[in-house]
Amino acid sequence: MTVVDVVIMAAGKGTRMKSRRPKVLHRLAGRGLVDHVIDCAMALDARRIVVITGHGAEEVESAVRGSFAGARVVPTFVRQEPQLGTGHAVQQAVPQLPDDGVALILNGDVPLIRPGTLQPLVDACAGGKLALLSVEMPDPTGYGRIVRDGSHVRAIVEHKDASEAQRAIREVYTGFMALPNALLKRWLARLTNDNVQGEYYLTDVVKHAVADGVEVVAIACPDRVQVDGVNSPLQLAELERAFQLRNARELMEAGVRLADPARIDVRGTLQCGQDVEIDVNCVFEGRVTLGDGVRIGPNCVIRNTAIEAGAHILGFTHFDGEKAGVTVGEGAQVGPFARLRPGAKLGPDVHIGNFVEVKNSTMARGAKANHLAYLGDAEVGERVNYGAGSITANYDGANKHKTVLEDDVHIGSNCVLVAPVRIGKGGTVGGGSTVTKNTEPGALTVARGKQVSISGWQRPKKAPK
Amino acid sequence: MTVVDVVIMAAGKGTRMKSRRPKVLHRLAGRGLVDHVIDCAMALDARRIVVITGHGAEEVESAVRGSFAGARVVPTFVRQEPQLGTGHAVQQAVPQLPDDGVALILNGDVPLIRPGTLQPLVDACAGGKLALLSVEMPDPTGYGRIVRDGSHVRAIVEHKDASEAQRAIREVYTGFMALPNALLKRWLARLTNDNVQGEYYLTDVVKHAVADGVEVVAIACPDRVQVDGVNSPLQLAELERAFQLRNARELMEAGVRLADPARIDVRGTLQCGQDVEIDVNCVFEGRVTLGDGVRIGPNCVIRNTAIEAGAHILGFTHFDGEKAGVTVGEGAQVGPFARLRPGAKLGPDVHIGNFVEVKNSTMARGAKANHLAYLGDAEVGERVNYGAGSITANYDGANKHKTVLEDDVHIGSNCVLVAPVRIGKGGTVGGGSTVTKNTEPGALTVARGKQVSISGWQRPKKAPK
Amino acid sequence: MTVVDVVIMAAGKGTRMKSRRPKVLHRLAGRGLVDHVIDCAMALDARRIVVITGHGAEEVESAVRGSFAGARVVPTFVRQEPQLGTGHAVQQAVPQLPDDGVALILNGDVPLIRPGTLQPLVDACAGGKLALLSVEMPDPTGYGRIVRDGSHVRAIVEHKDASEAQRAIREVYTGFMALPNALLKRWLARLTNDNVQGEYYLTDVVKHAVADGVEVVAIACPDRVQVDGVNSPLQLAELERAFQLRNARELMEAGVRLADPARIDVRGTLQCGQDVEIDVNCVFEGRVTLGDGVRIGPNCVIRNTAIEAGAHILGFTHFDGEKAGVTVGEGAQVGPFARLRPGAKLGPDVHIGNFVEVKNSTMARGAKANHLAYLGDAEVGERVNYGAGSITANYDGANKHKTVLEDDVHIGSNCVLVAPVRIGKGGTVGGGSTVTKNTEPGALTVARGKQVSISGWQRPKKAPK
Repeated sequence: MTVVDVVIMAAGKGTRMKSRRPKVLHRLAGRGLVDHVIDCAMALDARRIVVITGHGAEEVESAVRGSFAGARVVPTFVRQEPQLGTGHAVQQAVPQLPDDGVALILNGDVPLIRPGTLQPLVDACAGGKLALLSVEMPDPTGYGRIVRDGSHVRAIVEHKDASEAQRAIREVYTGFMALPNALLKRWLARLTNDNVQGEYYLTDVVKHAVADGVEVVAIACPDRVQVDGVNSPLQLAELERAFQLRNARELMEAGVRLADPARIDVRGTLQCGQDVEIDVNCVFEGRVTLGDGVRIGPNCVIRNTAIEAGAHILGFTHFDGEKAGVTVGEGAQVGPFARLRPGAKLGPDVHIGNFVEVKNSTMARGAKANHLAYLGDAEVGERVNYGAGSITANYDGANKHKTVLEDDVHIGSNCVLVAPVRIGKGGTVGGGSTVTKNTEPGALTVARGKQVSISGWQRPKKAPK
Repeated sequence: MTVVDVVIMAAGKGTRMKSRRPKVLHRLAGRGLVDHVIDCAMALDARRIVVITGHGAEEVESAVRGSFAGARVVPTFVRQEPQLGTGHAVQQAVPQLPDDGVALILNGDVPLIRPGTLQPLVDACAGGKLALLSVEMPDPTGYGRIVRDGSHVRAIVEHKDASEAQRAIREVYTGFMALPNALLKRWLARLTNDNVQGEYYLTDVVKHAVADGVEVVAIACPDRVQVDGVNSPLQLAELERAFQLRNARELMEAGVRLADPARIDVRGTLQCGQDVEIDVNCVFEGRVTLGDGVRIGPNCVIRNTAIEAGAHILGFTHFDGEKAGVTVGEGAQVGPFARLRPGAKLGPDVHIGNFVEVKNSTMARGAKANHLAYLGDAEVGERVNYGAGSITANYDGANKHKTVLEDDVHIGSNCVLVAPVRIGKGGTVGGGSTVTKNTEPGALTVARGKQVSISGWQRPKKAPK
Repeated sequence: MTVVDVVIMAAGKGTRMKSRRPKVLHRLAGRGLVDHVIDCAMALDARRIVVITGHGAEEVESAVRGSFAGARVVPTFVRQEPQLGTGHAVQQAVPQLPDDGVALILNGDVPLIRPGTLQPLVDACAGGKLALLSVEMPDPTGYGRIVRDGSHVRAIVEHKDASEAQRAIREVYTGFMALPNALLKRWLARLTNDNVQGEYYLTDVVKHAVADGVEVVAIACPDRVQVDGVNSPLQLAELERAFQLRNARELMEAGVRLADPARIDVRGTLQCGQDVEIDVNCVFEGRVTLGDGVRIGPNCVIRNTAIEAGAHILGFTHFDGEKAGVTVGEGAQVGPFARLRPGAKLGPDVHIGNFVEVKNSTMARGAKANHLAYLGDAEVGERVNYGAGSITANYDGANKHKTVLEDDVHIGSNCVLVAPVRIGKGGTVGGGSTVTKNTEPGALTVARGKQVSISGWQRPKKAPK
């Protein structure tokens, strides 16, 4: 197979983004634009990935290093300072490129390019050609036209330099090319900046290829969105939507049933089993897996969470696994208006109801917390019933402590369990109790005042204003 | 009027759905595909409805029986095993069809067909004709062309058998036909399977009609979406959106004001009075009625609920009436972040606020539960003020019990009312009380510990790690 | 500069709206249709704004007065009763128009017209011309055609009166015109109602202008949606969406990053700093400001709220500042599932978590209320930790009272603070306490029952049915 080195242009400022953030770090589907491009390079099995940075170089390099720490190929960086054109940019990468192999030039702000679109370029130039990626534009005004002589490309002609006949050409250059490293190096060395802008243009390699008798081919990209760049928040939003629709279609082709493909956002990876149903307006972030037959209600936000087969998630449920992850067991039911936070681990058939928060707690098979409750740093046994309004007081203002509810415990309503505390197997805590000490298995525990009534009590009156 | 018998083809597997569920049971707008088709048959006043099942026959039959239990016409089933083509399918229905009347052939996976589109077919064949439903396709590739001789149809020609001239025809057959039962039976008996697939094709009846000198007419469907079938999750989602937009338009034509017609989902029946306003991203399920002037805030999910005139539902409210229903009285205000569950019956001017759950409870005129509370199995009198954080402990771990709050009762914050319990008229319960015994009218009841302070207490320190 | 008087037609009934509300009071982006038109008049620096009312006159006048109380130009009203056509309507405005200046005729049910589109009309007629606003229609059937003689308009010809050649004209009249007041008065006096409907048509002024040798010009509106009127809920929804998309584009051009431009609703003014990110499905109402770097999660509803730089709002958060406003300090974090109500004022770095409600309360720097809690009429000091499930009992059934938590106070879980009450600096309240009396600085306060256990207690059994 052809050895590929990928060079990614990521030095641009992106003034029209009107942001302090370097352009290639703007997020699409939850990841930096340049991360998507590097993913594509990885998928092409690149030997080296060279990222050319400039504006915000340190921020870009640090972010990319973070995203690809531990990757098979760790991107290397070269800086372009000052910025004297696209040819000059790629010249900075030359020291990183061996003499063998093929260079593939990508753009850090064109995130939706797919490996399958680029592979033919690589294959073409493996035979010693220069391969350009082109695209048909209904209105090509402003773009560099691909001027052909049969199947051979003769030139890329800028709009302003184009003849009337050339302006009629709709096939334009996309900014993507592939060519043997050796040729790239030879031609880069010949680039000059004798033009109005005083810049070195990468596209001038076409001229040198033609002069050297090297065949230049242009391969058409089937899909405009793959070569669209991000220069403004509007373009970013357009590509975000294109990405999400593409992703939604792929989910549906795999059998997932979406109530509305225009109202799902996946920012990371979503793996689904068979017969998964996802209702409107859900957002998935990070790494989410949904087992066979899982149903997700409307308006859920789910991040870093594994939901096992047959679980049913009602609407308005918020899972945030962040680093510790969230797991939901087989046949569990969660929501509506529930929030599971990092380290929530629900066993099979667990029920979590409305206005319930669970954090860093395990709940064993069949445990229930159905109404207005908080479980933090708790270990909850099988079949435990955790009453409405009850709270684990897990934080003493300085340290976090653990609450253990053994199997078959019943906690009444509006209880406070002051951790560290353990309620023994089968124990019951009466409603309204604040429990500070461990209890024996099977015991009924209460901790509350005696009920007293005062007859004929006069209610406060509305104060005169 | 012409007597119609409807035959529904529902034997297909739907491999591209990639689902364990038989294709015709996939849900569109909350109901099985085949249920929509049967609804259409009902609307046409069908004498008999014969459903031909095959793949997943038992599951399909059981689901359809459930959906139409008690209907005016209960669908009958015939099985097609093995599956030897569309003609063979309809042959299975013959024993169910009387000799008089007209047969209308529908498809269980084409859910958006409308009665008004089919009535002309029925009317046409009442005069002894064979009536086909056709549709214009911009790109008819792959479809059977309607070959006409003036107004008479001469043949349906499959794409692969079509001449160049025939391939230019854009009018194609949709799979829907109507014809006198007697003729159907005669022609079905003549079908042969001497074709490459070895199948019996229903469309061959056209050939026999022409041979017998029976007039064949084709009536154009005005609306492509009515004849689109579901073969994949993508098609299912497309028809779901088409259905929902159609429904949204109908609501608006009736005067309902929708903030965004592309962001409303109705899965069942939604009946609206005058001057109803529905904000973005709401979902309605089952049977929902909204009285005059009702306003529904953004992101509500409402199922089996009746909301009376002038009520105002704030955003993020979840009503689930399931079987027992939910009712909201005139001028009531509910939400945001409220959840009403089965059997919640709110009287006029009731207020339910944020993070409040009400289940199987009645609340009389002017009662309020404004903050973080649970009311289950309760009977709440007029003007009762139910404090923040208060809970009815209605479940003792084995049985459910009732809480009665008589008129003008005030319940303080974070109370527990341990059912069965009754708070007498005008009584007050102090904040933080757990009430286990009935209280007298007008009494102030408290059940809590005495306040004690320890000066100069040292807080826990952060543990060294 | 040319002095402009604006005349707004707002007398129509709007039968197709099927509403009790007068048509021009229907809401688009949270304001009455006619309010948008008056806004446009204000932006054109109108000397006078005359609103012609008819159907529902009192309701319209009262609503408009409310919307523009204190405005630079207060709209004046004239009534058209009975309604005898558009010319008759404008005749009612004549007494309000001085002889100098220019009249600009707008429609109260055409809300998306922009000042920049109308200014050229005003400028044109300043030179003594009659200026019409026209628009190109792909299908002009039913509309009045602009018949030109070079750049001069010769007539507006109604569809029914148009010749074949005229029917081919796609430039139609929009209902907007501008002309010198003096000419308007002259020509209005000449209008007759000798037509089939017996009405006085404003468009007849064109005839009189031509007869008087006054030049008539037509200026094309670039954008169909600006001249679309609202006659039905469907049209209202279409213009709502057009408005929202236009607004979304403007936000993005200013640098705001929207996850989905089709899923944001702004009903009022939304001012954003740099690097603001807004996730899907958010609704903004009233006056909202978002400082630099603010991030808004999915599904938020935000009304009359100021959020300062760097604050992070998680999903499902509901801010309703109504009249008193809500403020969120720098670097604060709020949500998910939080509700801030009028008078909630959060200082820098405050944390508000899930199922928490804050109303008419100030929270100083670094205070936290992370779980299931209610703060009403409270003054919360710096670094206060307000425990899960805790409630300020601010309402005694008649009056509201204040709770003061001084700096560094820790409130345990499920506490009730019965206002008026003050917890001294650095004080601690144990979980489950109901506090009714002030506490000293540094003290630990508890108010709860002693914990008692009963061994071998028998749980209730399921009752036989």
